[in-house]
Amino acid sequence: MALDLDDHRDGSGWVVRVSLPEPSLKDNTADADRLCRCLQQELGMDQVHIGLDLSRRLPALLRQSHYAVRCLVFEDRPHHGVLIHLDAGDSPAAVTGLAVDLGTTRVVIRLVDLENRKTLAETSFDNPQVNVGPDVLARIHHTDRPSGLEDLQGQIIDALNAQLEALCGACSLSTDNVHLFSVAGNTAMSHLFAGLPAHWMIREPYIPAANRFPLMHAHALGLCAGGNARVWLFPNVGSYFGGDLIAGLLFSGLHQRSETALLVDVGTNAEVVLGNSDWLMACAGAAGPALEGGMSRMGTTAAPGVIDRVRIDAQTGHFELHTIGELPPVGICGSGVIDLAAQLFLSGMIDIRGKLQAGPCGERFAIKNDLAHLILVSREQSGTGRDLCISQVDLDSLVRSKAAMYTILETLTGTMGMDLADLETFYVAGTFGSLIDPVSAITIGMIPDLPLERFQSLGNSSLGGATKVLTERGAVSEAARVREKITYLELNVNQDFMNRFSAAKFIPHTHKGRFPSVNLLKQS
Amino acid sequence: MALDLDDHRDGSGWVVRVSLPEPSLKDNTADADRLCRCLQQELGMDQVHIGLDLSRRLPALLRQSHYAVRCLVFEDRPHHGVLIHLDAGDSPAAVTGLAVDLGTTRVVIRLVDLENRKTLAETSFDNPQVNVGPDVLARIHHTDRPSGLEDLQGQIIDALNAQLEALCGACSLSTDNVHLFSVAGNTAMSHLFAGLPAHWMIREPYIPAANRFPLMHAHALGLCAGGNARVWLFPNVGSYFGGDLIAGLLFSGLHQRSETALLVDVGTNAEVVLGNSDWLMACAGAAGPALEGGMSRMGTTAAPGVIDRVRIDAQTGHFELHTIGELPPVGICGSGVIDLAAQLFLSGMIDIRGKLQAGPCGERFAIKNDLAHLILVSREQSGTGRDLCISQVDLDSLVRSKAAMYTILETLTGTMGMDLADLETFYVAGTFGSLIDPVSAITIGMIPDLPLERFQSLGNSSLGGATKVLTERGAVSEAARVREKITYLELNVNQDFMNRFSAAKFIPHTHKGRFPSVNLLKQS
Repeated sequence: MALDLDDHRDGSGWVVRVSLPEPSLKDNTADADRLCRCLQQELGMDQVHIGLDLSRRLPALLRQSHYAVRCLVFEDRPHHGVLIHLDAGDSPAAVTGLAVDLGTTRVVIRLVDLENRKTLAETSFDNPQVNVGPDVLARIHHTDRPSGLEDLQGQIIDALNAQLEALCGACSLSTDNVHLFSVAGNTAMSHLFAGLPAHWMIREPYIPAANRFPLMHAHALGLCAGGNARVWLFPNVGSYFGGDLIAGLLFSGLHQRSETALLVDVGTNAEVVLGNSDWLMACAGAAGPALEGGMSRMGTTAAPGVIDRVRIDAQTGHFELHTIGELPPVGICGSGVIDLAAQLFLSGMIDIRGKLQAGPCGERFAIKNDLAHLILVSREQSGTGRDLCISQVDLDSLVRSKAAMYTILETLTGTMGMDLADLETFYVAGTFGSLIDPVSAITIGMIPDLPLERFQSLGNSSLGGATKVLTERGAVSEAARVREKITYLELNVNQDFMNRFSAAKFIPHTHKGRFPSVNLLKQS
Repeated sequence: MALDLDDHRDGSGWVVRVSLPEPSLKDNTADADRLCRCLQQELGMDQVHIGLDLSRRLPALLRQSHYAVRCLVFEDRPHHGVLIHLDAGDSPAAVTGLAVDLGTTRVVIRLVDLENRKTLAETSFDNPQVNVGPDVLARIHHTDRPSGLEDLQGQIIDALNAQLEALCGACSLSTDNVHLFSVAGNTAMSHLFAGLPAHWMIREPYIPAANRFPLMHAHALGLCAGGNARVWLFPNVGSYFGGDLIAGLLFSGLHQRSETALLVDVGTNAEVVLGNSDWLMACAGAAGPALEGGMSRMGTTAAPGVIDRVRIDAQTGHFELHTIGELPPVGICGSGVIDLAAQLFLSGMIDIRGKLQAGPCGERFAIKNDLAHLILVSREQSGTGRDLCISQVDLDSLVRSKAAMYTILETLTGTMGMDLADLETFYVAGTFGSLIDPVSAITIGMIPDLPLERFQSLGNSSLGGATKVLTERGAVSEAARVREKITYLELNVNQDFMNRFSAAKFIPHTHKGRFPSVNLLKQS
């Protein structure tokens, strides 16, 4: 996914070139104070902090460069800047930063030229902490062991170093050229990255060690980067609403528009924000496990050979499967599962409860271990030498997940006295989210039946938000404002909620009138 | 000199004990944010910075201490605090800080309990950099050698560590109990302490590397102290007006009073500030070398056996000498030299040009190497086995020094349209300054002939100012305001100045009417 930064730029970047007035007997302020004065004027800041290391290098540099220097200044809080890097005004060295989407499962990093604000390279890799535990809970339990926290922190730092070095190498750069990191992760991932205790996060009343993080020294965290490189970590709202979502909101611009919109980030959890420039209401629920990866023996994350699109000819029952890289199928990813369920429903192979129907499934229907299965790909045609199946248990799990998602959306909008049909824009974020076919998601009743043009896929919005912090001067303050504006709605799982959930456990819903487009498809 | 801190207290100290509201589902903000919120309220700050190290310790500490903690917070700039130390509310450990008067020749350190704001212990030692060069110039030249700067920095840091360890030991404390340093030195000493290049300070247009210093980590400077200890270094006005003087002003309170007063700090240089709560005018001149230490083969800093007081019976010519510790005399210190010159003048042994008079001197007069000498103590009575003498060269040097001092005072007050006689208060700062007998200083015409009650000896005002920063919340902002308010008067050594200087080279002055009290003494 190539992000067009130009669409999201406002203001200028963090690299500024300044020419200082040369000192004289009439203007004999000190070197550091002279540079500060000039940077404050240039950037409209009250104060620019220059650390001892850079102050030591400054006098010789100023005189060698005839008082023309290039500075990387980062505004870590309103009107307060930190000088991070300094070289001669005509230095040819690249000044770069790294945006990090620190996912529980997958990490995406993007190397950005901080001067022209263009992406230089991008890559992704599995979070190595997966080996300790697939989810946040298992990893936090691991921190209770001796050196558990250091162990997990070391794993992610080592992986980032290795991947960053490769990324820099591919651009003919050194990690010494990297001076700023912007990291967006959920609250747990942020704590493990910073080496902060996470033990109390998962125990009532669910208290993180920190919601806001100081600007950190990259070297103190063990990251390989320029000598003075700093790390900015997105703040959290709380244990269940992390910096990845703040980053996503920042990227979406939802918080800046007068119209009320909804943003759904479907990752390991489903996180939802409803709001506009006046207010932001958020909630999170466990909707994801069945949708991403962990779904079944067959379920997997998007990778070569994985089925990501399914069409079933309602007349002939023929399955048309698309795999990533068009390789022999080895599994099915979340978006493929949603496609599959929608197509199974439209072709009558599952009923409105999501139960497999032996008749319509025909040869694909099988009972294994007393459990109904649908054979998606026979062993002859699969890339694994085994049948690729989906079981009734998998489908039940999907139905519960989609029902939870819809119920959360309904509850959140209902709390604000709105109806889902009122939403002008429905943002879908997350790598996974961006792969979902909205028609299929509507068909199974996971998301409301809105006109398709109201859905906007943001792609990796956390990475986009992290990139914004690297490239736009106003982004840090904006993130702080977003954070402060968010009201977190604790889901009250009462009888009303359970009633809504029960109604949503049908495909698409017990109230068919809410999904007119599905009725049309079903009839066609 | 025991400083009564109570006289200089306003506001409260940096150690605060807070009891946080325990977290609940209704109030589930993160630990660090909870502490910040509470400290901000308690201290009236907009922001309190909590570094990663303390954030890591915070969750366990809060729960062990039932949310009652003791915090050391230092306000490094207006409304912005830094959490430096944190322990349980009932911790018995002392929380201390070190005030440092970083003199070119002598360093004085004072260990202060930051909680009850009382002095625990105090000591002084020679600045080990003296071995590299006695004055600022020689040391800055040394920094041009390979590792010269690191060498000088290492010397002062090592000496501070050794002395601090001894001081702590004497109080049954460890250096781990020291969490904050407040250091006042001249601009050169501050640069060498922080390891900042000083090369350009002594070359036109005399530019220091920095006038304001960031709050530093003690460990990064090599100081042995608590894990998170910080170092605050007084800001400078410029190369020739250092943080030691800002500290002195802070201690004097001159900048807070409506009446115009003058402060003279006689160290290696004579530095003078004239002003009140509306304005501050400063200048510095080389008045000191002849007054402190370097004066003559005999001159020395105050130490056991050194002559610090001289009386000559005008009738009998009998010399009454007082030595420090009442030991056999081994030398004479600056205040002793001023006393001696005043007494020699009153007894007619020197004339108004400061020339030794053979007749009145009698047996004490000697010509050695074609140069007139006065034998102060014969070899039989001295503690060195040699005659203690003062030569005509020494006396000429003293006369030039006192003339320079008086001329600077006259020029500075004249620039502001004032007369020296208008001064309501005349503060004398510096260890040396506090030893001077004002009557003697007036007698030789070094300082104006004001009523004695207008002279106020401040003692070690730099150390006093450094102590204020450790014990009073408002002191850092006050130092910044003092710094910004100072106008530095570059001495214009023109014909007028030289005329005033020539007139001041007589004892007490060519205009005898300016020194009526000396006329009375001389006649008596």
